[in-house]
Amino acid sequence: MKMIYEGKAKRIYEDGNETVVMEFKDSLTAFNAQKVGSFEGKGSLNLKFTTKIFDLLQKQGVENHFVEILDGSRVRVKRLKMLPVEVVVRNKVAGSLSKRLGIQEGFSLKRPLVEFYFKKDELGDPLLTEEQILVLEILTPYQMQKSKELAQKVNKGLLEILNAIGVDLIDFKIEIGMDKDQNLILADEITPDSCRLWDQKTGEKLDKDVFRRDLGDVAQAYHQIAQRLGVE
Amino acid sequence: MKMIYEGKAKRIYEDGNETVVMEFKDSLTAFNAQKVGSFEGKGSLNLKFTTKIFDLLQKQGVENHFVEILDGSRVRVKRLKMLPVEVVVRNKVAGSLSKRLGIQEGFSLKRPLVEFYFKKDELGDPLLTEEQILVLEILTPYQMQKSKELAQKVNKGLLEILNAIGVDLIDFKIEIGMDKDQNLILADEITPDSCRLWDQKTGEKLDKDVFRRDLGDVAQAYHQIAQRLGVE
Repeated sequence: MKMIYEGKAKRIYEDGNETVVMEFKDSLTAFNAQKVGSFEGKGSLNLKFTTKIFDLLQKQGVENHFVEILDGSRVRVKRLKMLPVEVVVRNKVAGSLSKRLGIQEGFSLKRPLVEFYFKKDELGDPLLTEEQILVLEILTPYQMQKSKELAQKVNKGLLEILNAIGVDLIDFKIEIGMDKDQNLILADEITPDSCRLWDQKTGEKLDKDVFRRDLGDVAQAYHQIAQRLGVE
Repeated sequence: MKMIYEGKAKRIYEDGNETVVMEFKDSLTAFNAQKVGSFEGKGSLNLKFTTKIFDLLQKQGVENHFVEILDGSRVRVKRLKMLPVEVVVRNKVAGSLSKRLGIQEGFSLKRPLVEFYFKKDELGDPLLTEEQILVLEILTPYQMQKSKELAQKVNKGLLEILNAIGVDLIDFKIEIGMDKDQNLILADEITPDSCRLWDQKTGEKLDKDVFRRDLGDVAQAYHQIAQRLGVE
């Protein structure tokens, strides 16, 4: 298969006219790939994790790009025009927001905060204001509005799913693609790479921060959350 | 007089119940005060510059905090509750926006872009999205809306004033205070410290970038723009 794109944690291959194949790699990166690691089975775990979350969200009316699982690490997905932003939803303050604005990690926001980041590795994915997005025509007003609605809907669904397994959803990022009928569709992945997940009882981190911040055995953290979700 | 506050380019002193005294210093700083300079007469020049601009904007219905000029570098101003943000308006891309988003300096925006920055020296005055401002209650919805309207009105007025003297207004920042009747009032200063001003014919910079980027004699640039405005 001809590879179209290789990212930090996935590869994309040519497939049909309306589909591509997405492969989950075992690699882990942080700080815009300045820190690199991996563990065996991570790609397969993240594919199973995403599949389960996407299935649960689908039942709540959130459409996603998965078409069919091909093997342990590869899935056929719809060919979409990806929006050039990452959409982040935060329920509690952590990570870059905490650092940039000097707010303690764990501070509960009075309502979910949606943020847009410009997908530009060479610029370190800078934060965008909605006015910047519109004035610079990074998204159309329709794409921006629909992205916010989709992000809020995913957050609502994820909060329910994770609350049921004793996990606090601190924040997460999604990527969104547009199909040929201009529908905005949840794409990419939802995994411990793309979410901050804290055990509700112990506060233990069950996500990529374990790797980012050298907090212990990242493979164990990923397997634990996968087991709780019932995908291992 | 008892000094209440010393900033990078101004000092504030106690005065009456409803006023304070603002003194313009000769110092110049850039990059969050990592680069420091000064030239004689700069404080006095900036006070004259602000006075003239505030007078012209007043005629267009923009209220400001000046009460009376005390001497060459000091002015009595209304005692206001300052909003914890800087409001930036951009007509063309330059400076931090150019760097952060990888857009060439001088790129004309299709409409003026209003941005908010959190006034926190220790954090380097980070960019804020409107959602962050509302969710973190940095401003009330009323303050945010009125600030945007005021910034747009100031921009409209400044564009006219500067266009008449052959100068392109690239961007500027203002600070806003609230009086006891909840009116939002233009405060602080409007000077070559707080604006980017390019000669319309030659593109020559007539603002603090001359100092920031070591482009020549900053005093000469300030005197030139002051002369064009008719304040020297």
